Amino acid sequence: MQIFDSIKKMQEWSLQARKQGKSIGLVPTMGYLHDGHLSLVQAARRNCDLVVVSIFVNPLQFGQGEDFEDYPRDLSRDTDLLADAGVDAVFAPAAREMYPAGFSSSVEVSGEITRKMCGISRPGHFKGVTTVCTKLFHACMPDKAFFGQKDAQQLLIIKKMVRELNFPLEIIRVPIVREHDGLALSSRNVYLDAGQRQEALALNKALSQAKEQIAGGERDIARLKDRISGIITASPQAEIDYIEIVNGEDLSELEAVDGIVLIAVAVKFGKTRLIDNLLVEV
Amino acid sequence: MQIFDSIKKMQEWSLQARKQGKSIGLVPTMGYLHDGHLSLVQAARRNCDLVVVSIFVNPLQFGQGEDFEDYPRDLSRDTDLLADAGVDAVFAPAAREMYPAGFSSSVEVSGEITRKMCGISRPGHFKGVTTVCTKLFHACMPDKAFFGQKDAQQLLIIKKMVRELNFPLEIIRVPIVREHDGLALSSRNVYLDAGQRQEALALNKALSQAKEQIAGGERDIARLKDRISGIITASPQAEIDYIEIVNGEDLSELEAVDGIVLIAVAVKFGKTRLIDNLLVEV
Repeated sequence: MQIFDSIKKMQEWSLQARKQGKSIGLVPTMGYLHDGHLSLVQAARRNCDLVVVSIFVNPLQFGQGEDFEDYPRDLSRDTDLLADAGVDAVFAPAAREMYPAGFSSSVEVSGEITRKMCGISRPGHFKGVTTVCTKLFHACMPDKAFFGQKDAQQLLIIKKMVRELNFPLEIIRVPIVREHDGLALSSRNVYLDAGQRQEALALNKALSQAKEQIAGGERDIARLKDRISGIITASPQAEIDYIEIVNGEDLSELEAVDGIVLIAVAVKFGKTRLIDNLLVEV
Repeated sequence: MQIFDSIKKMQEWSLQARKQGKSIGLVPTMGYLHDGHLSLVQAARRNCDLVVVSIFVNPLQFGQGEDFEDYPRDLSRDTDLLADAGVDAVFAPAAREMYPAGFSSSVEVSGEITRKMCGISRPGHFKGVTTVCTKLFHACMPDKAFFGQKDAQQLLIIKKMVRELNFPLEIIRVPIVREHDGLALSSRNVYLDAGQRQEALALNKALSQAKEQIAGGERDIARLKDRISGIITASPQAEIDYIEIVNGEDLSELEAVDGIVLIAVAVKFGKTRLIDNLLVEV
């Protein structure tokens, strides 16, 4: 497995691979890998000749007072895991390689899709995501890039960016991976203490119950949100950031549950903000 | 010569060419071609196996009250010229192909380089340019893209965007082409009446005299600007937008003429705004 910290060397490797007719699958990550990331790697291996995993904690997508400094990092453990998983190349640039002095370019998706949900509580976050993804796509030149459904809003924004700016690649959605008790995997789960860890199960429980209610015929969004809220606030430390039930393709508002619907929640437990979601088709 | 109006078909052609190991040179234009454009085509032919010329009058880079509607267009004359020039493919999409309903992505270079000169008189112009160039680069997948020195600020902004966002391509600068009497070629020259056409010669005259004065030892920027201004305002219809003498690589301010220096002017004759410039190395 090759490890690159230089954009130029990464790009040369990718150009060479493409000249040889090999397809490239990219899994962009911020490292501190868990089984969710590894399921993205497995999807990439099934779909492409070569797999590149990028590891970069992107300062641009963290706001002031967020956890950029504290975000967990363990590059040597990550590269061991990726070598075992059969990855061909790791792209792990330093921040100064990605954003040298004077850097002032940006890529942005505006409109409703970025203005709501995490766009409200994390201003500038998605602009940082689309800018770094543009750089990663150009550096690694994938045929396909794999993103987790866990970051549902991010996935839809990147799909819109790729479609509208005509990146010559395809975005592949990979399902959420959960612990046995239902907690969605996240690098930020390490921040939770035992009590918070237990309370955080409310997210998946609330989403699952909403799904059951919809299966049982419930179509009223306000009532569904109320029940989700009730389940989550039963956890004493839970502080709800948002509960949304929206169009699962463009995040637009719905009058009632209909079509492809995204139920998404963001909840803080102490300083730790967790997100989770569920797609249902009616 | 192939002519594409579909992004997908253009991209398939380019992917195919690259798989065959052919290098692609792209010449982005707004059409209504003149010898300046054809010199870009010739540079592309010398440098690359295949040449693609895009023809697209990009609504995003025109401000309110600018000449988007009136901008001269003649696609059949353009394609005849390009076929004669040995071009391999023309990419001429409609506006709705480039910007379908709901389009909300953008690429922007911020900072001093976009804030001054044409960035003042044409707010939003460069954001439109960088957004359309991103789409053209992804659709045509060039190894090299050719831009004229005539649009000096545009060229530097695109170079910065390509470098900072890691587009896997090289930007090639091609010198200004002038009429025999010195007027820089521009599709907008057709707007000039005979009197304005004659008065517009002041631009090249003023730039050339500044160059001579620098060759003669002048280093004072204020004095050079004054003389340029004096020559241009001797034309009764000339209305100066700006006269700038700045760093020729990043457009930063200079204390005196030193290094690679750009002397750039923008002047209106009636409704027609012309730009011209000169690079000097001291």
